[in-house]
Amino acid sequence: MDAEIISVGTELLLGQTTNTNAQYLSKELSDLGINVYFQTTVGDNESRLKKIFIKALDRSDIIIFTGGLGPTQDDITKEVVAKVLGLELIFNTDILNSMDDVFRQKGLEMSKNNEKQALIPKGAIYIENNYGTAPGIYIQKDDKTIILLPGPPKEMGPMVREFVLPKLRETFKCGIIKSKILRFAGIGESALEEAISDIIKNQSNPTIAPLAKEDGVTLRITAKAQTVERASAIIDPVVSLIKGRVGNYIYSYDNKSIQDVVGELLLKNKKTISLAESCTGGYVTHLLTNVPGISAVFDRSIISYSNTSKLEDLNVPLNVINDYGAVSENTAILMASGIRGLSKTDFGVGITGIAGPSGGSAEKPVGLVFIALSSKSGDLCERHLFSGDRETIKKRASRAVFNLIWRNISK
Amino acid sequence: MDAEIISVGTELLLGQTTNTNAQYLSKELSDLGINVYFQTTVGDNESRLKKIFIKALDRSDIIIFTGGLGPTQDDITKEVVAKVLGLELIFNTDILNSMDDVFRQKGLEMSKNNEKQALIPKGAIYIENNYGTAPGIYIQKDDKTIILLPGPPKEMGPMVREFVLPKLRETFKCGIIKSKILRFAGIGESALEEAISDIIKNQSNPTIAPLAKEDGVTLRITAKAQTVERASAIIDPVVSLIKGRVGNYIYSYDNKSIQDVVGELLLKNKKTISLAESCTGGYVTHLLTNVPGISAVFDRSIISYSNTSKLEDLNVPLNVINDYGAVSENTAILMASGIRGLSKTDFGVGITGIAGPSGGSAEKPVGLVFIALSSKSGDLCERHLFSGDRETIKKRASRAVFNLIWRNISK
Repeated sequence: MDAEIISVGTELLLGQTTNTNAQYLSKELSDLGINVYFQTTVGDNESRLKKIFIKALDRSDIIIFTGGLGPTQDDITKEVVAKVLGLELIFNTDILNSMDDVFRQKGLEMSKNNEKQALIPKGAIYIENNYGTAPGIYIQKDDKTIILLPGPPKEMGPMVREFVLPKLRETFKCGIIKSKILRFAGIGESALEEAISDIIKNQSNPTIAPLAKEDGVTLRITAKAQTVERASAIIDPVVSLIKGRVGNYIYSYDNKSIQDVVGELLLKNKKTISLAESCTGGYVTHLLTNVPGISAVFDRSIISYSNTSKLEDLNVPLNVINDYGAVSENTAILMASGIRGLSKTDFGVGITGIAGPSGGSAEKPVGLVFIALSSKSGDLCERHLFSGDRETIKKRASRAVFNLIWRNISK
Repeated sequence: MDAEIISVGTELLLGQTTNTNAQYLSKELSDLGINVYFQTTVGDNESRLKKIFIKALDRSDIIIFTGGLGPTQDDITKEVVAKVLGLELIFNTDILNSMDDVFRQKGLEMSKNNEKQALIPKGAIYIENNYGTAPGIYIQKDDKTIILLPGPPKEMGPMVREFVLPKLRETFKCGIIKSKILRFAGIGESALEEAISDIIKNQSNPTIAPLAKEDGVTLRITAKAQTVERASAIIDPVVSLIKGRVGNYIYSYDNKSIQDVVGELLLKNKKTISLAESCTGGYVTHLLTNVPGISAVFDRSIISYSNTSKLEDLNVPLNVINDYGAVSENTAILMASGIRGLSKTDFGVGITGIAGPSGGSAEKPVGLVFIALSSKSGDLCERHLFSGDRETIKKRASRAVFNLIWRNISK
């Protein structure tokens, strides 16, 4: 089964957007055992798009388009595909009504040009778009499968996972590829690889791939098999082996982020938390409050940028700030215990540092961050020096905060 | 002058790597006024690569390959190109010597398979690679220009900047392309397009392209000209025309994010701000504190998840919460005026809503968000209903907050 991907959009040819759709689709198809032999990007141009599509029909069984399904004049993918296949475009009232609902809920009137999104080629199935207005389209004609998806990754991704992949798996009786992703804190990529190098070397199914990402080291264990159960039976013994060596560093066995793991542990253990952030500017709280249901254990955060706020909101005495500095172990600990006392939570977190680009000195350079955790077992503080720009430092500091909470949550 | 880009590498077709090379090259070529009409990705496969190259020779003047120049057997780009063009591959001793030097400096012996990298097609120019061993190749044959570059972006990028772009500019006497990006708040893509459809239709230089992105609607106005000054003279009158129609919705004339615009306006106007966030969970403050130097005007935020915190930290009376609900216009306004009073800032922001997935009701569904702004001119509140998952609702609400501040900051 050979597939190809055609990305449509002049913005791609102008280099304004990175084509992550082609990568995402290629990865998912490859996991189904479907070969992708070509990825082509072409602009919103009828003649060139037509030529590419005719070529694709000649050499591939499955052709997936992304982009060019929107309401504007330059969105022409559907029109070109229908024309080449000789299919009439007909109005689908279900789509029209559901678009109308979306606009109505927003208190807006649907403008006339949106109606074009309700046209689908005769005999095609439409794919619901829960994150935008342009529906996807699935066409089975002769021995060819043609799939049209919208360009925005946030709309395309769910449609692929919820409709396209199950449909392809069913139609083409694909085997499966299953991966388990372990996530690590407190160990580097090379130390991890050394600790399990013999396990990595002796495996071909599953394969074991360490990967250092911005949010920590992960290990992907991938098995090929005919069924999910068979794949699990291949993966599980290897996971046990790895757990025996480096289990202390594993915070997730199913690719969860550290903030999700921490949020769920707080919920499970019924431990409440409050935070006092300075240099991270609310980013830690943002990540924590992405966890559904977190309101049961998260009480409040104070984003305390000024010294006045540290005094008024967190009871950090001005003489401590004057003697040790706003960026110091003492201040971080008083922020953590201050917010914990005020909000009467099990944990209090204090973060203070210099995110840059200015504000650094020889003694306290940009990237210096103190992270404190206060609980009934006492107060502790870590000193970090992060590199990177302002946003990177905020993100790295936030990750360190969740690592610190994770390591202490079960104590 | 028409160009196309051919990316070679099976890892791209497996979705293991994002193709950033195609974007980078497209952007640079487009800035030279060279049209890129196709980007194709193909695996390390002789027959398919040959077909794509022959097709490219037929339709493009400039063909740029990335990838497949390394020392291993599956690196075949150079061999296929030479074969199709009928050019003999000959050893270049300069390349061989310089590779030998690189290995010697590392105290390594060059393995035999590296020698293949010193082969170049007869009559071609080689492009030095200062960050790796595989040199690039520049071929001028008949009226076609064929450029071969290594796949790793860290090697390819400098070769493009230092050799390829200057060479193309000189050879093709390129003009330049200049773009101006306008960003909009408070108007949708289709409404914007309708409002200026006659302007869009009547233009070919500059071109005008509306684009709906997750962070709002943008308009890219792109001119081709011989000089930057000439391009500006083409773009500026069109910008004035658009400004006359929809200027009220334009928050940036140079592609700045709404949070940067708001942050800079606060700094410029010396207006201080504080925030009380509930459902956005610190995300608004995170975005605001990404603006360097914002500490001069940003005092503090309270991320107030619990009713107790709304009472204790923001002085929102419990009877208001009981009578109208924590998610209500009344609560949002009291949060905004509460934080403004406490921190004595010019602006106070209050945000309360239901980010989901649970917590919604028929009367107050998931996605309902109240956003209030308090200032000396009085208090105002907006009601929004956002769609999407928890994170999307947080992000959309945050964007609406910056829109609201922006519209009121100059009053």
